[in-house]
Amino acid sequence: MAGNIFGKLFKLTTFGESHGRAIGGIIDGCPAGIKLDLEAIQNDLDRRKPGQSAIVTQRKESDTVEFLSGIFEGVTTGTPIGFEIRNEDQKSKDYSHIKDSFRPSHADYVYEKKYGTRDYRGGGRSSARETASRVVAGAVAKQLLKDIEIKAYVSAVGEIKLDKSYTELNLTQEENIVRCPDTATAQKMEAYIKEIRKQGDTVGGVVSCVIKNVPIGLGEPVFDKLHAELGKAMLSINAVKGFEYGSGFEGAAMKGSDHNDLYNEDGSTKTNFSGGIQGGISNGMDIYFNVAFKPVATLIQEQTTLDKKGNMVKMQGKGRHDPCVVPRAVPIVEAMTALVLADYFLLDKVSRY
Amino acid sequence: MAGNIFGKLFKLTTFGESHGRAIGGIIDGCPAGIKLDLEAIQNDLDRRKPGQSAIVTQRKESDTVEFLSGIFEGVTTGTPIGFEIRNEDQKSKDYSHIKDSFRPSHADYVYEKKYGTRDYRGGGRSSARETASRVVAGAVAKQLLKDIEIKAYVSAVGEIKLDKSYTELNLTQEENIVRCPDTATAQKMEAYIKEIRKQGDTVGGVVSCVIKNVPIGLGEPVFDKLHAELGKAMLSINAVKGFEYGSGFEGAAMKGSDHNDLYNEDGSTKTNFSGGIQGGISNGMDIYFNVAFKPVATLIQEQTTLDKKGNMVKMQGKGRHDPCVVPRAVPIVEAMTALVLADYFLLDKVSRY
Amino acid sequence: MAGNIFGKLFKLTTFGESHGRAIGGIIDGCPAGIKLDLEAIQNDLDRRKPGQSAIVTQRKESDTVEFLSGIFEGVTTGTPIGFEIRNEDQKSKDYSHIKDSFRPSHADYVYEKKYGTRDYRGGGRSSARETASRVVAGAVAKQLLKDIEIKAYVSAVGEIKLDKSYTELNLTQEENIVRCPDTATAQKMEAYIKEIRKQGDTVGGVVSCVIKNVPIGLGEPVFDKLHAELGKAMLSINAVKGFEYGSGFEGAAMKGSDHNDLYNEDGSTKTNFSGGIQGGISNGMDIYFNVAFKPVATLIQEQTTLDKKGNMVKMQGKGRHDPCVVPRAVPIVEAMTALVLADYFLLDKVSRY
Amino acid sequence: MAGNIFGKLFKLTTFGESHGRAIGGIIDGCPAGIKLDLEAIQNDLDRRKPGQSAIVTQRKESDTVEFLSGIFEGVTTGTPIGFEIRNEDQKSKDYSHIKDSFRPSHADYVYEKKYGTRDYRGGGRSSARETASRVVAGAVAKQLLKDIEIKAYVSAVGEIKLDKSYTELNLTQEENIVRCPDTATAQKMEAYIKEIRKQGDTVGGVVSCVIKNVPIGLGEPVFDKLHAELGKAMLSINAVKGFEYGSGFEGAAMKGSDHNDLYNEDGSTKTNFSGGIQGGISNGMDIYFNVAFKPVATLIQEQTTLDKKGNMVKMQGKGRHDPCVVPRAVPIVEAMTALVLADYFLLDKVSRY
Repeated sequence: MAGNIFGKLFKLTTFGESHGRAIGGIIDGCPAGIKLDLEAIQNDLDRRKPGQSAIVTQRKESDTVEFLSGIFEGVTTGTPIGFEIRNEDQKSKDYSHIKDSFRPSHADYVYEKKYGTRDYRGGGRSSARETASRVVAGAVAKQLLKDIEIKAYVSAVGEIKLDKSYTELNLTQEENIVRCPDTATAQKMEAYIKEIRKQGDTVGGVVSCVIKNVPIGLGEPVFDKLHAELGKAMLSINAVKGFEYGSGFEGAAMKGSDHNDLYNEDGSTKTNFSGGIQGGISNGMDIYFNVAFKPVATLIQEQTTLDKKGNMVKMQGKGRHDPCVVPRAVPIVEAMTALVLADYFLLDKVSRY
Repeated sequence: MAGNIFGKLFKLTTFGESHGRAIGGIIDGCPAGIKLDLEAIQNDLDRRKPGQSAIVTQRKESDTVEFLSGIFEGVTTGTPIGFEIRNEDQKSKDYSHIKDSFRPSHADYVYEKKYGTRDYRGGGRSSARETASRVVAGAVAKQLLKDIEIKAYVSAVGEIKLDKSYTELNLTQEENIVRCPDTATAQKMEAYIKEIRKQGDTVGGVVSCVIKNVPIGLGEPVFDKLHAELGKAMLSINAVKGFEYGSGFEGAAMKGSDHNDLYNEDGSTKTNFSGGIQGGISNGMDIYFNVAFKPVATLIQEQTTLDKKGNMVKMQGKGRHDPCVVPRAVPIVEAMTALVLADYFLLDKVSRY
Repeated sequence: MAGNIFGKLFKLTTFGESHGRAIGGIIDGCPAGIKLDLEAIQNDLDRRKPGQSAIVTQRKESDTVEFLSGIFEGVTTGTPIGFEIRNEDQKSKDYSHIKDSFRPSHADYVYEKKYGTRDYRGGGRSSARETASRVVAGAVAKQLLKDIEIKAYVSAVGEIKLDKSYTELNLTQEENIVRCPDTATAQKMEAYIKEIRKQGDTVGGVVSCVIKNVPIGLGEPVFDKLHAELGKAMLSINAVKGFEYGSGFEGAAMKGSDHNDLYNEDGSTKTNFSGGIQGGISNGMDIYFNVAFKPVATLIQEQTTLDKKGNMVKMQGKGRHDPCVVPRAVPIVEAMTALVLADYFLLDKVSRY
Repeated sequence: MAGNIFGKLFKLTTFGESHGRAIGGIIDGCPAGIKLDLEAIQNDLDRRKPGQSAIVTQRKESDTVEFLSGIFEGVTTGTPIGFEIRNEDQKSKDYSHIKDSFRPSHADYVYEKKYGTRDYRGGGRSSARETASRVVAGAVAKQLLKDIEIKAYVSAVGEIKLDKSYTELNLTQEENIVRCPDTATAQKMEAYIKEIRKQGDTVGGVVSCVIKNVPIGLGEPVFDKLHAELGKAMLSINAVKGFEYGSGFEGAAMKGSDHNDLYNEDGSTKTNFSGGIQGGISNGMDIYFNVAFKPVATLIQEQTTLDKKGNMVKMQGKGRHDPCVVPRAVPIVEAMTALVLADYFLLDKVSRY
């Protein structure tokens, strides 16, 4: 109940601090009989891994997942799947400067106030390092979902926006380190991120996500609408400030006569402002949504901030941080999407007699 | 688990179809000892009620709530609070035209596919009529929250946008039927809604919400971040397409050096791009967010649509519908906000030894 | 979270005090497409109803259930099923004597201490009157379970015990008002209950229950073993002091070589000390268990008790109470059994890929 | 939802098979600020450990717990506490004989039927080895409960019963390897267990438990009564067949005039047939209950059983098993008790305004 459990039937519980011994989790409720491709799981982890390219944090972590239970002879047994990733790079010295001070726009201050104590090393539990556990579980969920395709990509870095609909893009492969599926835009983004890093600054961005081949009927009425759970899943990722699906905020400016999706005879629709979901339930059309990420709060610039005693102090970000979080956020967005869909896929199985 | 329960400790379960006998709910987990102002609850219901003004649906419902349990001599007893609102206006004839057809951008089609059956009268469970139950429960939650102020208002109707920050607005009273706290803008919105209605069309809009006097520490790490739950709560409201808090989607275009909220000595911050939440936990600053609503899908225009047999048929919206949903959505946004806060207020009580 | 919700997928939430306006509940998660026999539901309620025979409380309640939602044209729609039973007999005067005093072995004292207030009329929420809502929901669950047969009966009243295994009994019909399926024993029990009532006293008893035609595989490993949930369900019924299944407490005195159930070639077992459950999962054999009920605490004798001010006072039970609770407990035990089985039936549907 | 999560606020999720890499768990919802005595936790594990005495299984496991998160500088931080115990003794050869056969009165058959596959080594997830994770979490819970004393002990081994009330016993220390707090009875039990082992047989038993210093008010009305959750907790332990509290099954034979607990002026009661709980809520008196364990199903005798192909085959138990499970069950009963109480202690904190 303290917030580290996600899902109703396909349930992920995670643990772990940035600089503790390990991070990891338990998936309870994964059906028996799924032949798991463990390499595909590690591959998703590698997409999230620090140090993978020149534009991300250079923290050294191999991020190798070890499965501890729930899989026998390569197949899920229906019992809980425990897994862990040992933390290798625990240079706690890097963080001594934040032991007694609160970094601006970080969770240091609120953790201290809420809990009366905190593991200050690297942000502890509030570090985005915990999302590695989500990626592991999401990669398991993807294998449950089989034919459902989940593709996320970077659609904005700062002011640089990809002005194309997902339908115009080739999402089959990630062609560049920014993970923007448009080469020209990706190059601009990469250059911009490098410039920002030189400034010791950071910048925000947007990740977009498309889900294809969703069966009709995923979603539970009223409070657990499919897009409501997707929204919660995305908003639970570190640094996320907004979520919109289908027509999103632009839809708020439209008229009903323009916005309504008229049917074809096969139940598909001619347009898809609904974003593949009606009344909280998937209608078989593509689901698509955008997720806004704020700029990373850790700067390699001097800032004035507050210490525990209430004094204003100078602080300079050390350590190894991302100048822009969205390239590494792509597999996280996919993972959370997969967790939601796996859960709703199972829930739907008990909706009819 | 089928989605009609909201909350972890302050738990609302609702029931009821648009044209069934009654709608209502049960609040389980409301602490004992709250002296309830029942008039304030009915008052919030009246703000959501059909027929309250010239720009909303003219369906006839007095929407009077009857409390059935959990309150004794005006005070909550800690036992479940059952309540109901009888449906008075059950003109089922109005809806015979949708018995065998699926209205575009409505939930008719997906309900039929998911459940194999549906109460087609007025949209049944997918009708926004169920939100009346949320308003009742939210009004109870508000009384638990006492000093915490929750104020929502209309900030956009179609293309007409209120270009002021909430800090420039007087939110103490609702001065007009649009519920936009700026007279000039409200008049434009009202005129526009009337025009849209004349066209038999509908239009979307945005509701903004501000929460003041939030104690530091509400929010649970990782999956149950405060803004993630607020986002889910808002996205669960009918017709919502997007949610953003603090700097929101604009924050995604900003640099960290501009976006970081620097501290004052008392722990407050000089700016509030964070929107009162850091790392998923309230930091004592104002929480503010925007909620995008699509245009209502029911038009008083002829549309072509699909029937159960797979034929394309002509359909014309009858019944009594809102040309723009946002004025009536204001108390619903407040209610869902109150439910989340009441829940997290209780959760925080067990976070420290 | 305050304890008025039961079940994981087939979820019942109940409300209502003994002498409030109504009791009732909401079933969320009942699959769509069940053609409900409403008469069968009312019939189960009638088996629990006060005033049904000479050996039960003579409180006047017709206990007529009204369904408010979730059923359309006689069939469940997959949306929440709301229902209520209005309280008719609200003679609050009967209970004025307990407004300021705590009846011995009742919940008056602990409710006052826990909540600081209580609806003292008739025991309020702690009255067994709430079990009527369970019977309604259980009767719906029975219809989901179709071929699974649940039969409870009285196997002991005070010292009078039915010394036969369920396999020797004809459980198809309830032949007497005690609900003991052995005429000779039933007559003794009836005579004893009448004598006890004359003394102004009460007596405890045991209800036994058998479940036949259970599919193999119901039950979830470790914490949610089938018998663990059945045990919790039974222990949640007012006045229950113990639960045992299969060999039960007698099994604790046995040797493994006697207790082990050897297999037949078809997977059935030659004996059934396991009680139809192994490792928390049903094995297809009959499930059987016993539930111990204490004597009703309300006596029509004078007792000395405590008042709110800490004084010892004389108190004499008034009102209309059961001299022995087990005959009316039979349909309640069945209802709780049905709720558990319906829930685990649905859970099992998602255990395999 | 697949049953490996226990608790509502103090939530334990466990994983791990008997002969997999590790077992362990995550506690989510442990309040911040508890200074943990890690030695006391290991000490409880040692009480459950195989090989600790001549009358228990001789499997070789050091059962050393490693904490991975949630504790910083010896104090809980409010974030999830991850922990694991590596399996050292993985002699899978011991279990080759059960790869294709189903041991009588074990979970082999039902796991195979439910999941279509199983980790057959040592019983996999159905092995009582998983209870080590419960002991770790229970030992953490004990430290949250501080003044509340939980003492379990062996009160029966086969037909040998300890015929004394807990009030006549000295429970401060475990004086013998049987964990029966009466030397003469303990000696008889020990001798009997040794004899049973020589026979290659096993025997059942009873564990009793007493909880002292419980504050008034723990327990949630209706479905989540304190004794209902205790009952579920006990019944979830491997081999448990029954649970009774207070007067238990004997209470079913009593009259109300004998069974009612009359009050003293301070709110305590002169007798305690209620077992410290009224209406599901603790009343401040001692809570006491009995838990019946069946004889271990693995015999070192030849038995005839069923194989996967439906043939009857001879099987002889190998490996290292307990002739009687109750001595090692004592710390498990305590651990599950502590988990329930910690959870209800937190729940009670939000019951009043």
